[in-house]
Amino acid sequence: MPTLSSSAHCPSYCSSSSKLSTSSSIYGNHQRIAISSIRPKRFVPEKVSLRSNRNSYSNAVRMQDGAVAATVTSIGNETPFKKLRDGLLSVTSPEELGDTAGFDISKDKSTVSITVVGASGDLAKKKIFPALFALYYEDCLPEHFTIFGYARSKMTDAELRDMVSRTLTCRIDKRENCDEKMDQFLKRCFYHSGQYDSQENFAELDRKLREHEGRRVSNRLFYLSIPPNIFINAVRCASLSSSSASGWTRVIVEKPFGRDSESSAALTKALKQYLEEDQIFRIDHYLGKELVENLSVLRFSNLIFEPLWSRQYIRNVQLLFSEDFGTEGRGGYFDSYGIIRDIMQNHLLQILALFAMETPVSLDAEDIRNEKVKVLRSMRPLQLEDMVIGQYKSHTKGGVTFPAYTDDKTVPKDSLTPTFAAAALFIDNARWDGVPFLMKAGKALHNKRAEIRVQFRHVPGNLYNRNFGTDLDRATNELVIRVQPDEAIYLKINNKVPGLGMRLDRSNLNLHYAARYSKEIPDAYERLLLDAIEGERRLFIRSDELDAAWALFTPVLKELEEKKIVPEYYPYGSRGPVGSHYLAAKYNVRWGDLGVEQQL
Amino acid sequence: MPTLSSSAHCPSYCSSSSKLSTSSSIYGNHQRIAISSIRPKRFVPEKVSLRSNRNSYSNAVRMQDGAVAATVTSIGNETPFKKLRDGLLSVTSPEELGDTAGFDISKDKSTVSITVVGASGDLAKKKIFPALFALYYEDCLPEHFTIFGYARSKMTDAELRDMVSRTLTCRIDKRENCDEKMDQFLKRCFYHSGQYDSQENFAELDRKLREHEGRRVSNRLFYLSIPPNIFINAVRCASLSSSSASGWTRVIVEKPFGRDSESSAALTKALKQYLEEDQIFRIDHYLGKELVENLSVLRFSNLIFEPLWSRQYIRNVQLLFSEDFGTEGRGGYFDSYGIIRDIMQNHLLQILALFAMETPVSLDAEDIRNEKVKVLRSMRPLQLEDMVIGQYKSHTKGGVTFPAYTDDKTVPKDSLTPTFAAAALFIDNARWDGVPFLMKAGKALHNKRAEIRVQFRHVPGNLYNRNFGTDLDRATNELVIRVQPDEAIYLKINNKVPGLGMRLDRSNLNLHYAARYSKEIPDAYERLLLDAIEGERRLFIRSDELDAAWALFTPVLKELEEKKIVPEYYPYGSRGPVGSHYLAAKYNVRWGDLGVEQQL
Repeated sequence: MPTLSSSAHCPSYCSSSSKLSTSSSIYGNHQRIAISSIRPKRFVPEKVSLRSNRNSYSNAVRMQDGAVAATVTSIGNETPFKKLRDGLLSVTSPEELGDTAGFDISKDKSTVSITVVGASGDLAKKKIFPALFALYYEDCLPEHFTIFGYARSKMTDAELRDMVSRTLTCRIDKRENCDEKMDQFLKRCFYHSGQYDSQENFAELDRKLREHEGRRVSNRLFYLSIPPNIFINAVRCASLSSSSASGWTRVIVEKPFGRDSESSAALTKALKQYLEEDQIFRIDHYLGKELVENLSVLRFSNLIFEPLWSRQYIRNVQLLFSEDFGTEGRGGYFDSYGIIRDIMQNHLLQILALFAMETPVSLDAEDIRNEKVKVLRSMRPLQLEDMVIGQYKSHTKGGVTFPAYTDDKTVPKDSLTPTFAAAALFIDNARWDGVPFLMKAGKALHNKRAEIRVQFRHVPGNLYNRNFGTDLDRATNELVIRVQPDEAIYLKINNKVPGLGMRLDRSNLNLHYAARYSKEIPDAYERLLLDAIEGERRLFIRSDELDAAWALFTPVLKELEEKKIVPEYYPYGSRGPVGSHYLAAKYNVRWGDLGVEQQL
Repeated sequence: MPTLSSSAHCPSYCSSSSKLSTSSSIYGNHQRIAISSIRPKRFVPEKVSLRSNRNSYSNAVRMQDGAVAATVTSIGNETPFKKLRDGLLSVTSPEELGDTAGFDISKDKSTVSITVVGASGDLAKKKIFPALFALYYEDCLPEHFTIFGYARSKMTDAELRDMVSRTLTCRIDKRENCDEKMDQFLKRCFYHSGQYDSQENFAELDRKLREHEGRRVSNRLFYLSIPPNIFINAVRCASLSSSSASGWTRVIVEKPFGRDSESSAALTKALKQYLEEDQIFRIDHYLGKELVENLSVLRFSNLIFEPLWSRQYIRNVQLLFSEDFGTEGRGGYFDSYGIIRDIMQNHLLQILALFAMETPVSLDAEDIRNEKVKVLRSMRPLQLEDMVIGQYKSHTKGGVTFPAYTDDKTVPKDSLTPTFAAAALFIDNARWDGVPFLMKAGKALHNKRAEIRVQFRHVPGNLYNRNFGTDLDRATNELVIRVQPDEAIYLKINNKVPGLGMRLDRSNLNLHYAARYSKEIPDAYERLLLDAIEGERRLFIRSDELDAAWALFTPVLKELEEKKIVPEYYPYGSRGPVGSHYLAAKYNVRWGDLGVEQQL
């Protein structure tokens, strides 16, 4: 199997512990040089003017994220202006320096502190700490790093380590030094107990971080894994009390990013009181999924897809998400958001934008995000008549009774919150005019899956029409990108069934990841955490993208709520409300996930 | 898995023994109605005028091949004119009749006699009899049929049956009644000893055939599996002495169809003294191969290939054939033809024509053959400088010495006959102008394979160029149709290697027949024999196609021989002469079958 890439700069997995502080990036030369401005906003509560200085600085100095000046040694009481100047003065790009002594010094002198705010939460335990360990295991973290758990509960470092260790596995491959690596990793994990709205507690954290950072240039990443209502307070406290004095400070924030255009804008505005746009990393973990990452590769590095990717050949695009379980007693948060906000407006819409965008100028984050925003802004705001909502009801199967959504004790008995939604969206631009983009997302359905389905048009003047019988729709080509589980790409083609007759069937040209790639696929959080550490913003959502996404969904969300539209009830474990078929039929679409189908 | 076809008329395998005499055809409605003229040329040695009558007859009566008039009873001494008229009078098409009584009568009253001329030969034993048994086993032969072996050696029916039985296997699936079926089949096999140039011997055969046919309408198929030098004599004798009196008479002839334009034209002219064009079935068994049959399905029933199938997206097309053995003591025939005539001018060129033809008006034989001829006639005659020839030499590997071509005792010591050839061909039409079609065929190479490779162009403005390193050619898409062995279709795409980096590789979207279709794939001869019986001419080569094919190759063949061009010698078991690489390089092509490659 020929490998097409693998320049020394592009390892599939990180191979050097000095990775972060060298100039190499996993994204190849293209993305290696990022213009970074190191502007901790600490002590700058009013909107002072750093922004107006940006261009002049940027023009003067381009530097690699994480490879910060060797001359920075002052820590402490100076104003950020002073520190900033120090940080930028006499810095030479590592690109220009190459492997000189000065460069090596900076490598030894920088460190990353990762603080998981909300460390005792489920996501932290199940995803964030394991992802950090996987990165460490693969030598993707810098030589010097510290991990802090931050939460309200009282816990010792040992207790945190014990908690964390229970979720760690040497999942990537079973090398012998796994236990040793785990021990080394846990030794770098610490805990600090504090309130999320206490500047004082964050200042204590800052002191502890500084102890660990020593005299190195300190870069700090805060992962806010906390509920939305305490979000801004935590950002305020972290920014004011524990921003890095010498390096960068970045904050990963999780959905929900508001409930609608207004609340989202308010949230962004509040965030921007304390953070610059380039310090905000809005995470949508779907963008970190392997096959979503691969979408651009498929589109832009394969000629065969180039002529096909437009209204001329594509009949419709389907973005499908299903879970085979309900809220199961944890519906409190979900009930105030519902499936449209929880899945469609972010995950599925992000995939849609990546799928439909024009070719970007480059693979740089801003170029890609510019194109995504253009797609979102070209879309027609969703109409109520192009939407179907559902809610699962109780269902007994094989003697087992599955609960209704409203049986969940954390959900109001009269809740109208949709646990299922289907929507037809349209992009009014030259490439996609008239092509329905159908979304479908639901909980408590018959399977668990996320996939993109591209149905191609009919063959004009098809010589084989008679061989297909009456159901011509089923004879069109279809490209399926299965995001999860069991990653695969397959292209349904019409093929002659071997034999003496002329009988056609649909067979798959397929690429089944498990069969092709022996290596385990990294979790989306690994990729995203690494990107945040490296300052790669491509997979994070920019404020204007978020605004555009909300603009699309807010009117219909309001209408649903104001009119108290009753969802169509569907049995737990079913395929969802039949209304979704009528919606599809309205646009001459047939959902691609129906019917008996060859499984890979 | 949805099956798109399967109207009652299109079984994958035949299911009714009355198949032949009903109006159903395995090719669906499209191809069901063939205009057939039943004109045995017996007793018409001079070119009498049947041809001029053709149109009027054809206009008056359209009938299904093999479903001949119920009123025909006269056998024997009448002139063919009389018989012909009887055969055509008051015949109603089965299409019009439907399942009426008259139709059923005709079914009971028609029979097919298949005579294998050259019955003791290798091909007959290995391919023809087993294919006939497979057709019988699958109920594809009509209820009444007789098989005759014809050859010079003295043999009894029992001896023939014994010989035949040794090569029969119940290969399709191991049903319990196989032995019984085999017995029943063998009971229908008979032998007649005779000279190939004896009208008298063929007249004896005719008498025996008539005994078996009784009062049924007799249809007769002659399979001429004999060397070219006795070919015309056998056609003459069979035609004059044992043509059917009441039904059709068809003759399957095998390559070689001459050695060049002139000898081929002479052969055709001689054949046409005794046979009409539509009685001649020139067999090219490559056209009966499953994946060659599938080529049109792929192209014309899949929209995704439609925009790609031209110079705009295709960089080059490669037609590859290799055998991993030499002539092995049987080079006598081969030496006077060579690999160009043996493989390129027929098998590979036929595939090329099918691949490159414009969309035919329909799937009917004449429409397809018309388009194929157009391709051939648009091609530039092959130039000597666009051809590389080779001959294998002795090679010792692992203690085993493999012989040179000229070590074959049946080959002259100083033979210059190519056992390998590579050629670059061009189609000067709007679709293919400038696209090199490269052919490569050889014996005693490192593997045994036949495949079509379509290399697509580079991605214009490829965002991922840097990820490919320097070898951009290897990053282009490629469609591979592996005809044999182990049938498969795969499309090489660039894909992101799962992992945290951005490393690309080439993976396959693939359809591996053995994994997808449990059913064994029928041998090419089964399909072709069945087609000949059914009068389906699509996969047989028409005289004008043959002329055009020779026109392309004759000049260079003559030049090679006149100039006594010495072939490039290559070791037995190697990849062939390196000259083929220089030829490919001249047109910026890289042979697709090189290098380490993911095997399916």
